[in-house]
Amino acid sequence: MAVSFSSSAVSAVRSGVERELSAFYADHRQYLLEIAEELKPAADAVEAMISGGKRLRPTFCYWGWRAAGGTADDERIVRAAAALEFLQACALVHDDVIDNSDTRRGRPATHKRLAKLHADHGWSGASEGFGQGAAILIGDLCLAWSDEMYQASGFAPQTLQEGRVPFNAMRTEVMAGQYLDTLEQVRGTSSREAALRVMHYKSAKYTVERPLHMGAALAGRLTDLADVYTDYGIALGIAFQLRDDVLGVFGDPDTTGKPTGDDLREGKRTLVVAETLARASATDAERFESLLGATDLSVASVEWMCGLIEESGALAACENLIEEYAERALSALDSSELDPEARAPLRELVGAVTSRSR
Amino acid sequence: MAVSFSSSAVSAVRSGVERELSAFYADHRQYLLEIAEELKPAADAVEAMISGGKRLRPTFCYWGWRAAGGTADDERIVRAAAALEFLQACALVHDDVIDNSDTRRGRPATHKRLAKLHADHGWSGASEGFGQGAAILIGDLCLAWSDEMYQASGFAPQTLQEGRVPFNAMRTEVMAGQYLDTLEQVRGTSSREAALRVMHYKSAKYTVERPLHMGAALAGRLTDLADVYTDYGIALGIAFQLRDDVLGVFGDPDTTGKPTGDDLREGKRTLVVAETLARASATDAERFESLLGATDLSVASVEWMCGLIEESGALAACENLIEEYAERALSALDSSELDPEARAPLRELVGAVTSRSR
Repeated sequence: MAVSFSSSAVSAVRSGVERELSAFYADHRQYLLEIAEELKPAADAVEAMISGGKRLRPTFCYWGWRAAGGTADDERIVRAAAALEFLQACALVHDDVIDNSDTRRGRPATHKRLAKLHADHGWSGASEGFGQGAAILIGDLCLAWSDEMYQASGFAPQTLQEGRVPFNAMRTEVMAGQYLDTLEQVRGTSSREAALRVMHYKSAKYTVERPLHMGAALAGRLTDLADVYTDYGIALGIAFQLRDDVLGVFGDPDTTGKPTGDDLREGKRTLVVAETLARASATDAERFESLLGATDLSVASVEWMCGLIEESGALAACENLIEEYAERALSALDSSELDPEARAPLRELVGAVTSRSR
Repeated sequence: MAVSFSSSAVSAVRSGVERELSAFYADHRQYLLEIAEELKPAADAVEAMISGGKRLRPTFCYWGWRAAGGTADDERIVRAAAALEFLQACALVHDDVIDNSDTRRGRPATHKRLAKLHADHGWSGASEGFGQGAAILIGDLCLAWSDEMYQASGFAPQTLQEGRVPFNAMRTEVMAGQYLDTLEQVRGTSSREAALRVMHYKSAKYTVERPLHMGAALAGRLTDLADVYTDYGIALGIAFQLRDDVLGVFGDPDTTGKPTGDDLREGKRTLVVAETLARASATDAERFESLLGATDLSVASVEWMCGLIEESGALAACENLIEEYAERALSALDSSELDPEARAPLRELVGAVTSRSR
């Protein structure tokens, strides 16, 4: 959610990831423009998507490799890890269409960007429809390119084949998780179990566990490290998503790039919401539910909802959970199988992705 | 467009493709249901998409392999070829969202199917929005699985790597082609050049040339066969799309699964349209343009438009072009580099995909 955060474990990976993304993308941009110069706005939209973000998935993939004994100065792992940014670009572009979000990282969402292109040219038909259609195709390109960049990372074909096991699982899981997320929203689900299941697939496995598994697989050590990485990854992934959910309600707009209470306006069925509904009085819970997802939510209503989240004890419960899950992730790092040099960065990442001020 | 057509070159491949798709999909369906039983409607929607169609891309991939000297009874090529059906499923599901099409192969389009699920359950929010969001994710799953099935085909990793060159190109080209198609529609382009460019990428390269290239690459013969396959593939692909465009206006609804004049109602900027506008009088052209894409197009207007397409000479011009391109494709088969056993099926495919009654 935040546009950036400081962590030496992240910054150690970031510049390499950015270099490799730029190199890979330069060729593909050129290819698009050779097909037709009219593809430039689509090419620019892809570029905007891959030029920001926290690079979390590549970071976990890289440290998953290092903790499995992979060497520090190996460009292949940086390229394979960077490929995950194209998958993430697809997920975000499509997610923004699905949620009809206006902005992403403080800039217009891809479909809004293309809708504006349509409107600026005065083309026929609905600008919104054109923007959505174009964004669907732009996301598809990113998904295909993720795979292409992974395959072009330079690892031996047999090694790539092994890394594909978690890579494949990750793609299915994130889309299944997104589908469940959309479903829980329209079903108006308010159970903790449902919220946790979405977090498990859409965040924990996708953002932390599977990238770590990919790193281990590319280092030829998935078999012995899978369990340790699952223990660390699922716990940290849930803590990460919970922090995101808390920031989605209480975060500083300057840091999150979204207005206060944005998740409440979007009607997201997060664990914060489930905890609030489970703890509030029947009357308050009913009022909270009726306000959740209202597009014209007033500032006063947002304030009342935030108040209820705090007073009901839901916020404290979520903060406790974040701490518990973060602790659990840290304990997993005690495993003697991890390369000692990578333990400190993995420990630091726990703090970075769960901290209040990220 | 037609739900099926008879060709021994197609039927020789079809049953193997269907067997491999079923086997691959059974596992993935199970995986989705293990994540959550609520994913069943999504799983059913994928199943519906991969259980129909002409299997053209796998057919060309298979004969591309055979004409390159690949053996007849090799399950690996059938699996790699069948993987293209998942790519096609993604393209169709997303295309139907983009065009807001109601039906696909005579059944509800995926987004309509999921919108109905939403409406039937009385879930909150707009059914249409839910259907579109779900269909975007279902298409994404298909795109990821296309890649996964290809990689699991059983070829040696190094061979798969070689086959990925055309596979990668194909994915970028079809999405770029779809983007240009959407763009020409809103720009109201009526030039032959623009129509031909869309056909080149969206149909000719995607449906015929690149699948043939994949077959050649998997047989280790892309270098020497690329040009022959391009000559045959681009010509045949354009003839195929032109036949599709003619059938999209004049086709028998029982065979095409779409009402007469459907492409006129959708406002598609096909070569049939470009030829008509270039040949009609200024008054007729203006009226034709104003009717093109009108959702409430009357039967009488469709009849008038069909009449103009015929009287202007556009229909005859397109029929001549189909014949010319088909001839060009046939001549390419004279190349001595092709395995003689595969020449007859490739010849037969020219007839099958360009015939009026398919």
